[in-house]
Amino acid sequence: MTVRRPEEYIEAIRHRSKVEIYVMGKEVEDVTTNPFLKPSVMAFKATYDAPWDEDTKELARAWSPFINEEVNRFNHIHRSPEDLAAKVKLLRKISHKVGACFQRCVGFDALNTLYITTNLMAQKGKTDYKDRFVEYVKYVQKRDLALAGAMTDAKGARNLKPHEQPNKDAYVRVTDVSKDGIYVSGAKANITGVAATEEIVVMPTRAMGPEDKDYAISFSIPTDTEGIKIIIGRQLNDARRFEGGEIDGLPYYYNHEGLIVFDNVFVPMERVFMLGDWEFSGNLVEIFSSYHRQGYGGCKAGLADVIIGSASNLAKQIGVEKAPHVQDKLNEAVFLTETMYSAGIAASLNAVQVCPGCWWVNPMHANVTKHLVARFPYEISKITTDIAGGALGTAPSEWDLKNPKLRKYIEKFFQGMTDYTAEDRLRMIRLLENTSIGVAFLIESVHGAGSPAAQRIMFNRLYNFSYSEEVAKRLAGMRSSVKFSEKAEPWRETDTEKTAKSTKKE
Amino acid sequence: MTVRRPEEYIEAIRHRSKVEIYVMGKEVEDVTTNPFLKPSVMAFKATYDAPWDEDTKELARAWSPFINEEVNRFNHIHRSPEDLAAKVKLLRKISHKVGACFQRCVGFDALNTLYITTNLMAQKGKTDYKDRFVEYVKYVQKRDLALAGAMTDAKGARNLKPHEQPNKDAYVRVTDVSKDGIYVSGAKANITGVAATEEIVVMPTRAMGPEDKDYAISFSIPTDTEGIKIIIGRQLNDARRFEGGEIDGLPYYYNHEGLIVFDNVFVPMERVFMLGDWEFSGNLVEIFSSYHRQGYGGCKAGLADVIIGSASNLAKQIGVEKAPHVQDKLNEAVFLTETMYSAGIAASLNAVQVCPGCWWVNPMHANVTKHLVARFPYEISKITTDIAGGALGTAPSEWDLKNPKLRKYIEKFFQGMTDYTAEDRLRMIRLLENTSIGVAFLIESVHGAGSPAAQRIMFNRLYNFSYSEEVAKRLAGMRSSVKFSEKAEPWRETDTEKTAKSTKKE
Amino acid sequence: MTVRRPEEYIEAIRHRSKVEIYVMGKEVEDVTTNPFLKPSVMAFKATYDAPWDEDTKELARAWSPFINEEVNRFNHIHRSPEDLAAKVKLLRKISHKVGACFQRCVGFDALNTLYITTNLMAQKGKTDYKDRFVEYVKYVQKRDLALAGAMTDAKGARNLKPHEQPNKDAYVRVTDVSKDGIYVSGAKANITGVAATEEIVVMPTRAMGPEDKDYAISFSIPTDTEGIKIIIGRQLNDARRFEGGEIDGLPYYYNHEGLIVFDNVFVPMERVFMLGDWEFSGNLVEIFSSYHRQGYGGCKAGLADVIIGSASNLAKQIGVEKAPHVQDKLNEAVFLTETMYSAGIAASLNAVQVCPGCWWVNPMHANVTKHLVARFPYEISKITTDIAGGALGTAPSEWDLKNPKLRKYIEKFFQGMTDYTAEDRLRMIRLLENTSIGVAFLIESVHGAGSPAAQRIMFNRLYNFSYSEEVAKRLAGMRSSVKFSEKAEPWRETDTEKTAKSTKKE
Amino acid sequence: MTVRRPEEYIEAIRHRSKVEIYVMGKEVEDVTTNPFLKPSVMAFKATYDAPWDEDTKELARAWSPFINEEVNRFNHIHRSPEDLAAKVKLLRKISHKVGACFQRCVGFDALNTLYITTNLMAQKGKTDYKDRFVEYVKYVQKRDLALAGAMTDAKGARNLKPHEQPNKDAYVRVTDVSKDGIYVSGAKANITGVAATEEIVVMPTRAMGPEDKDYAISFSIPTDTEGIKIIIGRQLNDARRFEGGEIDGLPYYYNHEGLIVFDNVFVPMERVFMLGDWEFSGNLVEIFSSYHRQGYGGCKAGLADVIIGSASNLAKQIGVEKAPHVQDKLNEAVFLTETMYSAGIAASLNAVQVCPGCWWVNPMHANVTKHLVARFPYEISKITTDIAGGALGTAPSEWDLKNPKLRKYIEKFFQGMTDYTAEDRLRMIRLLENTSIGVAFLIESVHGAGSPAAQRIMFNRLYNFSYSEEVAKRLAGMRSSVKFSEKAEPWRETDTEKTAKSTKKE
Repeated sequence: MTVRRPEEYIEAIRHRSKVEIYVMGKEVEDVTTNPFLKPSVMAFKATYDAPWDEDTKELARAWSPFINEEVNRFNHIHRSPEDLAAKVKLLRKISHKVGACFQRCVGFDALNTLYITTNLMAQKGKTDYKDRFVEYVKYVQKRDLALAGAMTDAKGARNLKPHEQPNKDAYVRVTDVSKDGIYVSGAKANITGVAATEEIVVMPTRAMGPEDKDYAISFSIPTDTEGIKIIIGRQLNDARRFEGGEIDGLPYYYNHEGLIVFDNVFVPMERVFMLGDWEFSGNLVEIFSSYHRQGYGGCKAGLADVIIGSASNLAKQIGVEKAPHVQDKLNEAVFLTETMYSAGIAASLNAVQVCPGCWWVNPMHANVTKHLVARFPYEISKITTDIAGGALGTAPSEWDLKNPKLRKYIEKFFQGMTDYTAEDRLRMIRLLENTSIGVAFLIESVHGAGSPAAQRIMFNRLYNFSYSEEVAKRLAGMRSSVKFSEKAEPWRETDTEKTAKSTKKE
Repeated sequence: MTVRRPEEYIEAIRHRSKVEIYVMGKEVEDVTTNPFLKPSVMAFKATYDAPWDEDTKELARAWSPFINEEVNRFNHIHRSPEDLAAKVKLLRKISHKVGACFQRCVGFDALNTLYITTNLMAQKGKTDYKDRFVEYVKYVQKRDLALAGAMTDAKGARNLKPHEQPNKDAYVRVTDVSKDGIYVSGAKANITGVAATEEIVVMPTRAMGPEDKDYAISFSIPTDTEGIKIIIGRQLNDARRFEGGEIDGLPYYYNHEGLIVFDNVFVPMERVFMLGDWEFSGNLVEIFSSYHRQGYGGCKAGLADVIIGSASNLAKQIGVEKAPHVQDKLNEAVFLTETMYSAGIAASLNAVQVCPGCWWVNPMHANVTKHLVARFPYEISKITTDIAGGALGTAPSEWDLKNPKLRKYIEKFFQGMTDYTAEDRLRMIRLLENTSIGVAFLIESVHGAGSPAAQRIMFNRLYNFSYSEEVAKRLAGMRSSVKFSEKAEPWRETDTEKTAKSTKKE
Repeated sequence: MTVRRPEEYIEAIRHRSKVEIYVMGKEVEDVTTNPFLKPSVMAFKATYDAPWDEDTKELARAWSPFINEEVNRFNHIHRSPEDLAAKVKLLRKISHKVGACFQRCVGFDALNTLYITTNLMAQKGKTDYKDRFVEYVKYVQKRDLALAGAMTDAKGARNLKPHEQPNKDAYVRVTDVSKDGIYVSGAKANITGVAATEEIVVMPTRAMGPEDKDYAISFSIPTDTEGIKIIIGRQLNDARRFEGGEIDGLPYYYNHEGLIVFDNVFVPMERVFMLGDWEFSGNLVEIFSSYHRQGYGGCKAGLADVIIGSASNLAKQIGVEKAPHVQDKLNEAVFLTETMYSAGIAASLNAVQVCPGCWWVNPMHANVTKHLVARFPYEISKITTDIAGGALGTAPSEWDLKNPKLRKYIEKFFQGMTDYTAEDRLRMIRLLENTSIGVAFLIESVHGAGSPAAQRIMFNRLYNFSYSEEVAKRLAGMRSSVKFSEKAEPWRETDTEKTAKSTKKE
Repeated sequence: MTVRRPEEYIEAIRHRSKVEIYVMGKEVEDVTTNPFLKPSVMAFKATYDAPWDEDTKELARAWSPFINEEVNRFNHIHRSPEDLAAKVKLLRKISHKVGACFQRCVGFDALNTLYITTNLMAQKGKTDYKDRFVEYVKYVQKRDLALAGAMTDAKGARNLKPHEQPNKDAYVRVTDVSKDGIYVSGAKANITGVAATEEIVVMPTRAMGPEDKDYAISFSIPTDTEGIKIIIGRQLNDARRFEGGEIDGLPYYYNHEGLIVFDNVFVPMERVFMLGDWEFSGNLVEIFSSYHRQGYGGCKAGLADVIIGSASNLAKQIGVEKAPHVQDKLNEAVFLTETMYSAGIAASLNAVQVCPGCWWVNPMHANVTKHLVARFPYEISKITTDIAGGALGTAPSEWDLKNPKLRKYIEKFFQGMTDYTAEDRLRMIRLLENTSIGVAFLIESVHGAGSPAAQRIMFNRLYNFSYSEEVAKRLAGMRSSVKFSEKAEPWRETDTEKTAKSTKKE
């Protein structure tokens, strides 16, 4: 079946060939049962639930012209602005199911990025990459595979280019090329969800020059390829997962990030999508990051919904939900959340078509989305901490509640309004603690899809300062303001034309 | 000709019947030449230039099914999300032409508001209003009339309802009804651009109860109807317009706001669109305010572009444009500007259809747009003041430059880089002063289309708190979390369905 | 010796009578070795190191007129504005030693609060309390005891007063009074550092009315009194303390918060400092909270210094410390930090004398301090997360580094500049993670010494709105502006007089 | 009389020798009656009222050891931290009198700056400057002269140093030196209040190198010296002053800024306080700017009080003063205002003594003060605009109120609550408009005493990053963290010692 059932996904992950995955220094036997990784697998699985759940199935399925079948949207190549909007809406809804990052967007965005990039390369006469990649899309769609997208390199000294690094492997590179394939070494860092995937799609992490040719590579490879080692990173509160409780580690879902080490790994040529074409690496990064920045308007808004709901409920539990300042704070959190979402929706519905059948997001709106996401979660976190009350940082453990000698005290002193129990309160406090002050909502919101400085570079590049200056000069009556700059922003032009067409005589 | 030429508009305004308009206590002879009002007429005129200017004509024209002709978009009834987006894009572009509010949106939004409201009333069996209103739309479109929208009442004591006010005219009301028409008294305040219009569309300003019946009225009336008096309000820096200079009052365009006094004015029945139907007044206000809040994503972003362009140019004039902190501040201003615009675009393209052929904006996105507009301009103003340098508050007047004894000093000491003259600098400083610290960018951004508190009420009403709470309860494993609330937000549901449809098998 | 040595403190805590303390549901044998509580004891101990450390000994000692000996400042009764400033400066410095909350301020502030309150009560003829309390001060100072201050009650339903609560013990109350003492029941929540103390000073948590008389009580009691149970609350990342590592749980210092349960506990009368005097409970709370709000200007600024230092070093480790945006972000963090500190200094040096020998802080400045602290740490956290890079949320554990199979990869891929090792980077990342996104810096900054809403109530009460309105009326030339309000803010008056005196002819 | 009466000041200004002052291109006959400048003179005069007004006289007088008499504080050399605090408190109070900048601080700060600078020069053996300057202080104090401080140069191309400028006069410079004195050319820009002064104290505007020697000069000169030309700058709403009304130009007080042109002006040697000593120019600028930054904590807080009072009263006028969101906004404005003030107080009372009898402010706190002032007024302006309502940008003119045909409408439709008249409302609206959106509160708050970037440079320089890094390294257990940096911040050391001393055994 093309659209897999969630249990099929779990089985597939469980029955991969041996993958070397390490958590806290120990090798993992089965990711689906490992206490650290299981929440991650469960969150990833939600993307396989979506096409079957009543409230998401319309959004989570799309028709693929490549295989002429319905596919899981996470492996779909966007064919319209509405497709892009469906992504954002779906991400928001799945966030409501898991209250965490479900990790499949990176692979999703990698797929769409390479579709555009290989098209652009084909336009310059390099058609092999595109042909290979379309075959790969069909392969992935038919099997509904779980993909990781791997972009960020180890990077070493940030003030040096790849080829200037003392550590030659600071960026993933080609070490050898044969007729059948290539050998690669290096490491990709911060790879979301990688332990829960079947395939890894590797991309370069920055614009490169001719001397960096060996680093300008893109390919895909099964996660269980020999020679790959995955070291999972720590996260706030991660150690609670080993306690075996059912409350303190809430929610039961989480994401993980891994370091993938490639120690001279072989990649067959039919899976190589860029090989030394350094002049396309900048494009690729820009395309990918805009796709990924757009998505944050959905998933982080959805996570914010969970956080707002938790705070709103905690206010009720202690009887302050009608206090004007509490109402006002909730309204503020809604405003911040819906602003992130609005930008994500604009980035989708105001998309640009960059090649036949290739729909990219609107890059300006997408960068706005991410920059908002890099700011507002801290504000939402502060607001909801405020509403929740100090108990957020001082509430007892579930083990206290379960201790018969202490239970009566906890029940007596942690109950607020009598409609709720002390356990209700502890549960909601833990949910809020683990979502509002978590890696996914804070650190990842800042750095995922590029740190804030990267978006500011894009604002500078995308905004037409010389046009604005000419506008100002004309209004100021400055003598030098004779002519407007010829070239306005390409996407805004596109807007005008597109809209104009759609609104002309019917 | 259905799409009027700008000069036709000017002639029409000039040749209205006598209207009692007062500026600074004196009656105005001709609004097109009065120093206070001329900039306003010029800005309004830009909406008539738009269908003829090369760079806006596609956006500024639309096909009307009512009269089966092309019309100026400002009198168009939106027929699609793309229509709504075209409004936002057009507003941004016209802002670039005038660097000011061009005032025609209020009438535009009033027209669309009454189209939906009379449709809603018709659905409840009150079909007359709709029939009359459609005739009115045709009348307006054929003549390409300049409309004012008049909503805000004098309001007296804000803690009392209309019928409770000591001053019975604190809200506009019906004083008498005959077969042919109605008599109205009271005043509408803060009416944007009214002195430059040919027709006034009057609407109630708040939700009302049965005792407020006499205040629940909507109608249109020619601006030059006898008995109407218009008193124009003051604005920052307005007195400079009487100096006769060419630099210090920059830009040459501005808006005005007027108090319209109705002293027992007769309105013929075919122009009455609501008469005592208090139960629809709340709807009407919500529909109008969301339309108007959406538009701010375009016009204020456009005004921000002018401000950014001015600051960017001033930085060049003194040689600091490459300083990292200047670059960073400009990037921040771009981010803030594009955030407002993104929300406006989302409010448009993610619109909701509320009756056949009625496209309303997405109310959540529209409220987000306005709330951003109530905040970010002060931030942009602060940033650009920072970039411009202290001369923004201390530069000499154009009369100093024109004094032969002083000219040499001004030229010597106000020149920065030699590519620019001191006059260039003064001109740009004045433009920035009059745009970034002006009524249109600051005060109007806060209060236009409803003060910030009004948007927060909408966030509270539009956001589905109980849904978010249920989501949280489920993730927290709370026993009481058995079922999800049945009714999700109507507009979001609509989204899902709409998207789903558009992405299904082709 | 009156000023105890740190090891004396540790011995004293270890050799208390049996105290029922629970951590994660299990009773603690020895707080000085328990993995959860040891960091807390170590942080508390730093207040005993301070009078002996070269760089803090001047600040950490003060002369007590009560016992005519030098005492540890943490048990000192402030005798001048300079004393108050010394507190703030000392707190900042100790934060640098431990990078955590060292927990002794609550008892310190409780001592000073009761000194003023019992003086105020004495002024109304209730002199016993003061006499008892002065004896208690001598007792504490001579032994250099470690005190906890216990104010916050369980509080139950926040919309009900103490006597209206369904749970009669929702606030701590007197259940019986005999000639020799009183019996108390209830619980005090969020009690900072209580497990590391020798005495608990209990105070009421809110202004009360006559019906709440039984709840208006204050007293002190040894921590090891029979009948007291202490349940320690959870905190972000707490479970890592049980791993036995040396890097991932950095810093080695932390605070804890406990719920103290009083189950009909006897308090001898000579330790009772308020008994039913409900009319003084509001004063007491205001005095305490202002003292505690002032202190945050020192300790949170000091914690921010640690965070800034960590981020600054991480920037160096990866070679971006000279990037203008990194510099700018560090400068912003400094500004935010020094603003908090400035307010704390003003609250100290601009103090008010409220009775002979009683120096209170300036309440307006103190509330400003805390309100800043409730906002800026989230901003500093966001900024430093930004500088640190995504590795903050994805770096591997120390157990990976210690695994010989993985060590080479970690060393190769986590090293940035060659001046630093991968271990250096991991260590600094962990320190930043555990300080910048920790309970002490985020949650406690919001809620400690009263949630933000409490400060806003104080702003409203302390600010003289009617004076400002009169000022405005006079400047506006309003007829009604005949006279200024008689009573200006008492503390500002005091300022004027104080300053005037000090600057007159010498 | 050493402390002059206000009328003596007015007479002195009126009877200066002829000064060439230009306003809007025309030469001014008498600054005390010129409509543009009169409000400025009235505001300046308030500094002469202060020693005689009951509520300020204690603060406004100080004892001078130079002439052994009581002097107006504005010409006092600070002799203690309390003196510095008295300055801040006095500034806040005078702001309440005039609702505007009263302009005398620049001269005040220049005097204190040169006192320290000439002392520092004397320490390096250059004693003449100090001797001359002490004589000058006596001269000024005995006559209670009104001083301007003149620092900012025209500056030309900001990316070039003084000696590199194409325009040699872009910075004020010495053109010739004789035994008796020096000749200077160039211009000083943005000179606050200069037209209302009797003496100008000129200082260099930046740190300089040896090639800039000719620009490293400081001197004083009577304002009515021949060859000086003063061109007054425009300001928001300035043209209203020529209307002759009594409401619309409120408040009746304002400041002005002038460009002073020196066209080869002679300065006698006894008034020269720096001549080519480029190595002291950086110190001088730092000393002056910190003094001036401190003062903003007083005057801008005072102006904010007027703005808060206006908004609070307007809320009452329309009956919304009890709405929770209005209360909350007022509380926020209070918080922002008191934060600025707190920092100013800290900068004063935590001052540093830099030479015998020389009290400088605390530079870190002073820079914090100014940086807050560069941000918060825009926030306060936004908040109070929000509270005031849209009428702030649309209310009619006083000329409408005075027109008998319109008066009844204005009275009917601009009255809110019946306790107030429409005139009351117009008056308060105008006061708020002219204060909250004025040059003094917005533009000057950003740029006065140095633009925000200048403070950030100081944060970077004053903050001990290497100390914070060492602290972090030690807490992180990094091997390289062997020793702490020797040299901590000098002012913080001073703090410790000072406090320690003051709190030791009495």
